[in-house]
Amino acid sequence: MELDVYFKFILALALVLIAARVGGELAERYLKQPAVLGELVAGIAIGPFALGQLFNDPIILNFATVYDAFGVHEFNVMEVISQIAVVALLFVAGLETDVRAFLRHGKTGGAVAFGGVILPFAFGYLITRALYPDAGSAGRLFMGAVLTATSIGVTVRILLDMGRLNTVEGTTILVGAVVDDIIGIVILSVAIKVAETGSIDYLETARIALVGFAVWFGLLMAGVRLHKYISLLLAPFRRSGTMPILAISLGFLLAYLVTLADLHPVVGAYVAGLMFAATREREEILEKTRPIMLFLAPFFFAYLGMQVDLGLLKTAVDIASILIILAIVGKIVGCYIPARLVGKLRHAGAMIVGIGMVPRAEVGLIIAGAGLTAGAIDRELFGAAVAVGIVTTLITPILLKPFFKRQASEAKAGEGSS
Amino acid sequence: MELDVYFKFILALALVLIAARVGGELAERYLKQPAVLGELVAGIAIGPFALGQLFNDPIILNFATVYDAFGVHEFNVMEVISQIAVVALLFVAGLETDVRAFLRHGKTGGAVAFGGVILPFAFGYLITRALYPDAGSAGRLFMGAVLTATSIGVTVRILLDMGRLNTVEGTTILVGAVVDDIIGIVILSVAIKVAETGSIDYLETARIALVGFAVWFGLLMAGVRLHKYISLLLAPFRRSGTMPILAISLGFLLAYLVTLADLHPVVGAYVAGLMFAATREREEILEKTRPIMLFLAPFFFAYLGMQVDLGLLKTAVDIASILIILAIVGKIVGCYIPARLVGKLRHAGAMIVGIGMVPRAEVGLIIAGAGLTAGAIDRELFGAAVAVGIVTTLITPILLKPFFKRQASEAKAGEGSS
Repeated sequence: MELDVYFKFILALALVLIAARVGGELAERYLKQPAVLGELVAGIAIGPFALGQLFNDPIILNFATVYDAFGVHEFNVMEVISQIAVVALLFVAGLETDVRAFLRHGKTGGAVAFGGVILPFAFGYLITRALYPDAGSAGRLFMGAVLTATSIGVTVRILLDMGRLNTVEGTTILVGAVVDDIIGIVILSVAIKVAETGSIDYLETARIALVGFAVWFGLLMAGVRLHKYISLLLAPFRRSGTMPILAISLGFLLAYLVTLADLHPVVGAYVAGLMFAATREREEILEKTRPIMLFLAPFFFAYLGMQVDLGLLKTAVDIASILIILAIVGKIVGCYIPARLVGKLRHAGAMIVGIGMVPRAEVGLIIAGAGLTAGAIDRELFGAAVAVGIVTTLITPILLKPFFKRQASEAKAGEGSS
Repeated sequence: MELDVYFKFILALALVLIAARVGGELAERYLKQPAVLGELVAGIAIGPFALGQLFNDPIILNFATVYDAFGVHEFNVMEVISQIAVVALLFVAGLETDVRAFLRHGKTGGAVAFGGVILPFAFGYLITRALYPDAGSAGRLFMGAVLTATSIGVTVRILLDMGRLNTVEGTTILVGAVVDDIIGIVILSVAIKVAETGSIDYLETARIALVGFAVWFGLLMAGVRLHKYISLLLAPFRRSGTMPILAISLGFLLAYLVTLADLHPVVGAYVAGLMFAATREREEILEKTRPIMLFLAPFFFAYLGMQVDLGLLKTAVDIASILIILAIVGKIVGCYIPARLVGKLRHAGAMIVGIGMVPRAEVGLIIAGAGLTAGAIDRELFGAAVAVGIVTTLITPILLKPFFKRQASEAKAGEGSS
């Protein structure tokens, strides 16, 4: 029956959401890990390459693929929900950014971010070229970009759990993570353009990167300087309580509009969030849009997990291992140097900043997912990218502990000698 | 490019949501009408039969239809979001029901609901048979069902605006509106089965109706009696703050599960909401799931509006006019009699109950949309059903006023004579 097919999508959504929530909960409660890891692993477990095969249904726990639709060879219906989810996720991430603190600590944070982007990006790009020559320029750019962006969510969580969020190191890490997210999603936009045209046009690349930074800086400053006018625009919608819905809808609109300048929608979603983050309405928007994000985000991460083919693990284990090591080493070294030189931190503090920047989760996975959807990376490379996200998140608290101890004893020694 | 097609869906969502929110706001602020009317009209204005034609794009402000997908002739991608939206809408509607008050005032409310269902349903069925013989049994059932369900949201809003929600009449109307929603969505389930098989099987119809009422009564009582065990099930998810997300995910699961018993998903969504409404967690679930509903519902109503072809207005004006008149007369007469006989209300009070039950919006439109998607009613009948929703909502406050005045003067006279 005609309607049954729509009912199946309701089931598909329910199963993915329930699995993701249960997985996220298990990770948080029993493994003391960020929920995103549990959601990802739940997705791998229920996906079409694992439990999903039991259903043998084109929609339920599968990709709901339609061939040759809307001028696209493989059109994936569930991907539509996944794209809506990632826009909501980045909008709220932008909204949660403390824009004014961000501008205050911009210098050190920015230097740390750039250092932490250059090395991992170069490593990702070169290793992919060496081991996967077939991936082409676009594939190399995607794998480089996957290694650039530190997960703000995971980092905040780890620092909070360790009681170190409001320290010099904590603030540096946070600002650095925000900046490298922006760099990461701008590189993503370039990578998509290259995937489209098949080759790197340096002028075009420079244009996209410039427009990308101009858009985020412009909208960030618009929020900071013109927040009164934005409040005026939102004011008529305050009384009915639907102002936050209008704000997130404008986030969706902006997410699309930036694609006209060859940027990925998450750039627009993120800067729309940043823009509203500087307004008086921020708290109200956050309160009413965070539940929307909490509803959609588990679907996004579980759906990323569903795209991991564990059967390819054996062939992808080499590149995954090398990428993981380089992701860790590249980030620590790349951030340590500016943390010492620009941030004037001591050895232990600079190591904490470097290690704190290691986790790659949300944005790295967003980039990997976009690369898979654009056809620029295959399932092996995608699986390796997901492995990077999982391992870098798991290892960070373990690596951090000795340096916190060392810093504490340094501080004691400093007190003793002074 | 492959990804562009997904970006277009982001734009489509943004445009529909912004138009719906602006339309809803204009309706509320300047026309003092329920937001749902503004969202519906905004949908008509931007839809593929109006402004949408300017885009000439298969996705943006259009139906994003794929032919011969998943065993369905016309598969509509935007309909997936619309189905998700309606499940969220009915889940929150169930959750907002005051279950214990509902059980206390069940007798009068139930009698009013049944009276108010029988006449309009018979009218809708017979008029469709007389004027649209081609519609078949399924089409007649759908048009009958469209006239049955009073809009709780619109009714609450009107009574609130008039300061009459917490009166005997107000409570009777509310309980009646809840019960006739349940009856309406059970008739919808029967109509879908008939649309599927092509003829009315009375045994099958009785079975679906029985299962439908058993499911809602069973889950309602499960909530009331077993709320402690439901709380236990939800407890592990409370600490991380994602308990409400799990609750609404279970609502989606239940929405699908009831379709296995040939019921429409909204039955499951609604009773899942009713079940949680009896638990201690209700407030917390409501607080975090209402924003999700507020985000999705405007899309649902605007999308219904988009399916209205104004070009068919001329040919549908006859049936629309007759349906509107019968929807109003049938509801008033059908509710007036039990309000006097069972509820022991005076003339003015019983008229207030009858008129208060007139607005048909959410559930009537849900039924009409399902009929259109199932292919049981055509765009002419669908347009007439939407017209019923709009006109009955607009006319109710106008009809109510004289009876409130009359009741006030009756009360004064009563006081004077006592």
